[in-house]
Amino acid sequence: MTAECWAIGVDLGGTKIEVAAVDSQGRQYHRLRHPTNVKAGPAAIQGDIVAVVRDLSEKVGSTPVGMGIGVAGQIDPDEGLVRFAPNLGWRDVPLQKDLSEALGWPVVVTNDVRAATWGEWLHGAGQGCGDLICLFVGTGVGGGVVCGGNMLSGCNNTAGELGHIVIHTEGPSCTCGNRGCLEAFAGGWAIARQAREAISRDPSAGTYLLNSAGGQLDAVTAESVARSANAGDPLALRVIDRAAKALIAGAVSLVNAFNPCRFILGGGVVDGWPYLVGQIDQGIRQQALAAATRSLQVLPAKLKNSAGVVGAGSLAIRSFTK
Amino acid sequence: MTAECWAIGVDLGGTKIEVAAVDSQGRQYHRLRHPTNVKAGPAAIQGDIVAVVRDLSEKVGSTPVGMGIGVAGQIDPDEGLVRFAPNLGWRDVPLQKDLSEALGWPVVVTNDVRAATWGEWLHGAGQGCGDLICLFVGTGVGGGVVCGGNMLSGCNNTAGELGHIVIHTEGPSCTCGNRGCLEAFAGGWAIARQAREAISRDPSAGTYLLNSAGGQLDAVTAESVARSANAGDPLALRVIDRAAKALIAGAVSLVNAFNPCRFILGGGVVDGWPYLVGQIDQGIRQQALAAATRSLQVLPAKLKNSAGVVGAGSLAIRSFTK
Repeated sequence: MTAECWAIGVDLGGTKIEVAAVDSQGRQYHRLRHPTNVKAGPAAIQGDIVAVVRDLSEKVGSTPVGMGIGVAGQIDPDEGLVRFAPNLGWRDVPLQKDLSEALGWPVVVTNDVRAATWGEWLHGAGQGCGDLICLFVGTGVGGGVVCGGNMLSGCNNTAGELGHIVIHTEGPSCTCGNRGCLEAFAGGWAIARQAREAISRDPSAGTYLLNSAGGQLDAVTAESVARSANAGDPLALRVIDRAAKALIAGAVSLVNAFNPCRFILGGGVVDGWPYLVGQIDQGIRQQALAAATRSLQVLPAKLKNSAGVVGAGSLAIRSFTK
Repeated sequence: MTAECWAIGVDLGGTKIEVAAVDSQGRQYHRLRHPTNVKAGPAAIQGDIVAVVRDLSEKVGSTPVGMGIGVAGQIDPDEGLVRFAPNLGWRDVPLQKDLSEALGWPVVVTNDVRAATWGEWLHGAGQGCGDLICLFVGTGVGGGVVCGGNMLSGCNNTAGELGHIVIHTEGPSCTCGNRGCLEAFAGGWAIARQAREAISRDPSAGTYLLNSAGGQLDAVTAESVARSANAGDPLALRVIDRAAKALIAGAVSLVNAFNPCRFILGGGVVDGWPYLVGQIDQGIRQQALAAATRSLQVLPAKLKNSAGVVGAGSLAIRSFTK
C-alpha cells in the first residue's frame, strides 16, 4: 500500500466478518474473512475482530487513521452503540467504546447497509454525485439515501429502511409485522416464499423449479428461482416478474419522493437477474413524474460485496482526517 | 411592525395571490389577497404582484431585506425560473429576474408546497426540529422533507412529491399518469371521485351524500364528503376511511424511509376531518418499524393557510440576511 493515509474497514455480519485495509482511493489491501462466532457472544466476537485487525495492521506496517465498522443492526451513532442486531443476538453493545479502547484507534460504527451506501457513494457507482439512492435487494431489502451531499440518517439513525415502504396495502405479510412492504415482494426470502406457494398451488407448472432445487420445496430459494428463470422456466419468470414490478413501484415512490440524480441497485437478487436494472430503469421512466426523472441515471452497484468494507473504511478516513 | 428586519412573502396560486410583510419571528403584517388574472399572462400577473408589493412596502414604511415567492409549479432554484406551472399556464418564466429587476430587491422563488414546509419548519409545528416531514393533503397531495437540518431539494428541485408514492400497485389511476399513488386515494379530487362512484354504484346508500351536495353528483366534493361523514353518514365514513387507510400506508412508507422526528399533517382534507391526525398517528405506531417511530411526534400543521406566505417571507429573510 503506497498511501500514507489508510483505515481499516470491517463488515460484521451474522455469519462472517470481512476486514480490509482501505486507502483514500477506496482500494482494498489484505482483505480477509473470519467466521462470526455468534454463540460465543459480543466479547468473544470483539476479541476476534481485534486480533484480525491487529494482524492486518502489522501486515501494512503502519498505523491506520482509524477503523470503520458496519454492523447489521440499529446503531446509535453518537456513542457507536449497537442498539439491536438480531442476526448477532446483540442488544446495547458499546462497540465503538470497546473496540477503540482495545485498539487505541478511533472507531466509527454504522449500519451495514449505510456502510455499503458510503462505499458506492465515495468509490462506486455514486462517485461524485450528491443526490443518490442505493437500494440493496438481497435476502432483505435496504438502502441508503444521499441528498444535497449529505447521507441521510434521520431522527434515530434509521433513515433508509427502503424495504419497508408499502407498495400494496393488501399485499403479503412482511417480517416487520406490516403487510405489502417492498421487501415482502422483492426480498430474497419473499421470492422464495412466492415460488414455494406457486409450486404448491400448481405442482405441474412447478416441476422444473422444484427439480432445480433437488426436489425439495424447502430448498427453493431466490437463487434457484433466478437460475430457473435464466433457463426460461415460465413459473420462475412469473415469480421474478412479480418482484420486478414491485421493485419498479418502490423505485417510482423513491424517485418521486427524493428526486435522486442516480438510482443504484445492488444485492444478490439484482446480481442474479441481469435484466432487472434495465427493467427498473424502463419502469421508472414510464411511471415516475417526468420532472423527477429528467436527470436520472439508473445504475448497477459497482463494488458488489466489497461495498460494506470499502464504505466502512472510507467513512473512517472521512471521519478521522481533516 | 417593530422588527427592523422583514421580508415580503408571496403565495402565488392559480386563483389568488396572497401577500404579507413577514418579520423574523414569522409574524405577518398587512396581509392582503389579490385575484390571479391567469388569462392576462405572466407579464400582467407580475405587474399585479409588483403593484401590490410596492403598496405594502409603503405601508410598512421601510425597505424589506427581500422577497420570497412560492409558486404552484416546478422551479429551477438557481435562476428562480418557473419551469412549468400548470395552474398558471406558465412555461419557463424568469420570475426571479423579472421581479428583482422591477422591485430592486433580491427575490427567491420556490415551490408553493416547499414554501409552506419552510413556514411550518421555521415558525409552525416544526419549529426547532431538524428532521421532519410535512404532508399537505388538499385537492392534491404534496409535501416537504427536512433531514439533518436541511430542506431536501433533490437533483431537479422536485424532492417531496409525496403524493406520488405508490401505495397500491393495482390502485386507481392518478392524474400523473401512474396508478395507485397516495394522491389517487387521499387527494380531495380522489375522495370526490370515490364518493361519486360509490353513489353511482349504490344510489340508495348514497342518498344522504348526494342530497348534501344539492342532489348533483358533480357537486359532490371532498368537503361535502367530510360534512356528511361528520354527520355520521355511513357511505361518507367509508370513503373517508379509505382515504385514511391510504394516508396511513403512505405515512408508514415515509416514516420508514426518512425516520423523521415530526410528521406534520396539513391541508383541507386534514382540516375537514378532525380525527385524521389521530388515526394516522395510531396507524403509524401500529405499522411502521418500532425503531423509526421511537421519537416520532405526529402533529397537525399550525399555520394553516398562512404557511405559504410566512414560509416564503421567512425563506427570504434566511436567504438575504447573515
